[in-house]
Amino acid sequence: MKILVLGGDGYLGWPTAMHLANRGHDIAVVDSFHRRLWDHEIGADTLIPILTLQDRVNLWAGLGNRPIRPFVGDITDWEFVEHVFKSFEPESIVHYAEHRAAPFSMLSRRHAVITQVNNVVGTLNILFAMKDLAPDSHLVKLGTMGEYGTPNIDIEEGFIEIHHNGRSDVLPYPKRPGSFYHLSKVHDSHNIEFVCRVWGIRSTDLNQGVVYGVRTEETDLDPGLATRFDYDDVWGTALNRFCVEAAIDHPITVYGKGGQTRGFLDIRDTMACVELAIMNPAAMGEYRVFNQFTEQFSVQELAEKVSEGARGLGWEPMIENITNPRAEMEEHYYNAKHTKLLDLGLKPHFLSETLIDGLLQTVRDHADRVNKRLLYPRHSWKEGLLEDVGPTGGRT
Amino acid sequence: MKILVLGGDGYLGWPTAMHLANRGHDIAVVDSFHRRLWDHEIGADTLIPILTLQDRVNLWAGLGNRPIRPFVGDITDWEFVEHVFKSFEPESIVHYAEHRAAPFSMLSRRHAVITQVNNVVGTLNILFAMKDLAPDSHLVKLGTMGEYGTPNIDIEEGFIEIHHNGRSDVLPYPKRPGSFYHLSKVHDSHNIEFVCRVWGIRSTDLNQGVVYGVRTEETDLDPGLATRFDYDDVWGTALNRFCVEAAIDHPITVYGKGGQTRGFLDIRDTMACVELAIMNPAAMGEYRVFNQFTEQFSVQELAEKVSEGARGLGWEPMIENITNPRAEMEEHYYNAKHTKLLDLGLKPHFLSETLIDGLLQTVRDHADRVNKRLLYPRHSWKEGLLEDVGPTGGRT
Repeated sequence: MKILVLGGDGYLGWPTAMHLANRGHDIAVVDSFHRRLWDHEIGADTLIPILTLQDRVNLWAGLGNRPIRPFVGDITDWEFVEHVFKSFEPESIVHYAEHRAAPFSMLSRRHAVITQVNNVVGTLNILFAMKDLAPDSHLVKLGTMGEYGTPNIDIEEGFIEIHHNGRSDVLPYPKRPGSFYHLSKVHDSHNIEFVCRVWGIRSTDLNQGVVYGVRTEETDLDPGLATRFDYDDVWGTALNRFCVEAAIDHPITVYGKGGQTRGFLDIRDTMACVELAIMNPAAMGEYRVFNQFTEQFSVQELAEKVSEGARGLGWEPMIENITNPRAEMEEHYYNAKHTKLLDLGLKPHFLSETLIDGLLQTVRDHADRVNKRLLYPRHSWKEGLLEDVGPTGGRT
Repeated sequence: MKILVLGGDGYLGWPTAMHLANRGHDIAVVDSFHRRLWDHEIGADTLIPILTLQDRVNLWAGLGNRPIRPFVGDITDWEFVEHVFKSFEPESIVHYAEHRAAPFSMLSRRHAVITQVNNVVGTLNILFAMKDLAPDSHLVKLGTMGEYGTPNIDIEEGFIEIHHNGRSDVLPYPKRPGSFYHLSKVHDSHNIEFVCRVWGIRSTDLNQGVVYGVRTEETDLDPGLATRFDYDDVWGTALNRFCVEAAIDHPITVYGKGGQTRGFLDIRDTMACVELAIMNPAAMGEYRVFNQFTEQFSVQELAEKVSEGARGLGWEPMIENITNPRAEMEEHYYNAKHTKLLDLGLKPHFLSETLIDGLLQTVRDHADRVNKRLLYPRHSWKEGLLEDVGPTGGRT
């Protein structure tokens, strides 16, 4: 199958491209390298060194794998999108090409606007390209579990049957997200639901949890095929930061009480879920939503798991509960359904101690690259910049 | 009170500015004149002639009324927004400064993107200006009843209590709107709910129905204070188009079966509702939603009311059910709550025959300005342009 991977230079995009190429599909990747640019903006870098996209695809093909075709450009640029669709004629489109950091989107007005315009316009362009140039193609769009927020009722997969005043309907699940980034994905979801209904195109919206891990079957083929690992205050996830902190004998920094509960999954399960969505496509005109995660943990539980793994390696980690830079509930009900991908055959990799051990070892191998300045939040949802030289060098 | 009216040159913005000035408030209006520009783009014009904003405010003050201060600029331009907030220091902000036409937003990819970027970015800028420069101010934001779509359950005012698997929560009402324009307002609503929750600012979201009528106490003071009247296929509403058609002995063009049911209100009730929202502001940190309409009608009922009114004047109107250019249900359940504004004291003006008579007479006075080419849809939600020279001159 001809599969276009948007954002194919990113943390998940690059391993996804290799994974699907290795299963015999024709793969093209699209990237604008904004993710790499924004590292410069906030003074951060991936802990694990990565090659340029051009070197990656050359190395990949040079090792005898099915070639991956790179397209360099920005999907908010319609002429570029039109060119890609006309020359590659995709049958499936995996869409990772979005801003993906809540803290980045909250840094300032400029960052909020960049995030929402980038994500909404990029996705609108892809939807119009599908309608006009590839009407049978299937969009596999990466959303986020963060779209739902933390409601006091069970979270369903995209839609909920509501009984009200003696009548009932199945309606989009109400959304109350926690950042301008998460909001941008809510906007996307509404736009995509609409075009599937009105134009008859089709899409699977993968509301993904927090992904951990850096190793897949394909990244293991060569160090040059590695994917990025972010641990900083803006792009890093809690688990990554905790591992880095444990590996350099720094306190493990939990935001607030740590009762914030979220869904998590292994990077290998992301590969499997995206593949399952592609191989079992939505029907024409269908907009379906899968909640893509395998386990729920609170942030405090996560810190304790990392701590336990580190002690197993003979290290002596400590947990520090620091002021929460985000505006979020630190204790709340959370029960999110995630059966649709299991029904399609997903076999989850759970966050076993083994995996944390491996992650901790990988991190310690690169301990000399850790920038300690990036471990504490430099910006608060409510207070603004916390340092004179925050993640944006004081520029808002 | 110092009240800033965004979009103060528009159909509702201009009468709102005069109405509030007449009640002793200090009023400034902001406009970018995009609405006038877009008339040129689609080859349409207001049926009732209107003055420039500069002439309007001069005439208004010259008649001895409390002056209205004009700011000319675009709220998607942050420097401009900052300037307006710093120099006027608003206590209330009435936000009409958005694209407001479903058909315009559906014309092409470019129109969809313009609509969503304009509305989302403009509103984000206002929210940041409130947080940073006027944190106590109250935003009265014009949303639309179209945000809800046509669910099979009762439509509540912004939020709904959901009972699910033995638990319950009050969550944002699920939205399934019918155009990129309506979607842009859904995006706004999510963004505004978020910032009220996280920053503690306050807003009233007025989910308004279709407004009819052109006469208010203030427009009646002088013909030069008239507001615009749109009847064309892109900007006109059904009732306006029906009146124009009846007035020139043209068939009344109902889209499809005409069972599409919506909420409607008199322009004088818009004035009253906005004033009630301003004088009874949301609490700090509150995001509240009022459904702003007074009566529900189907499009077919509306056509029959116009037809009846026209027959009362001795005219001989005919109704023609034409192919629906939109993608929408033509028969559906519709029961939308609208008690919150009544609770605050709204005394509705209902769509009596008297009003239709008056509207029909006003329209006939300007019958020589009617452009018949604009009465039939030139673009379809699903088929695209229906004429070689559509509303965009064939440009998409």
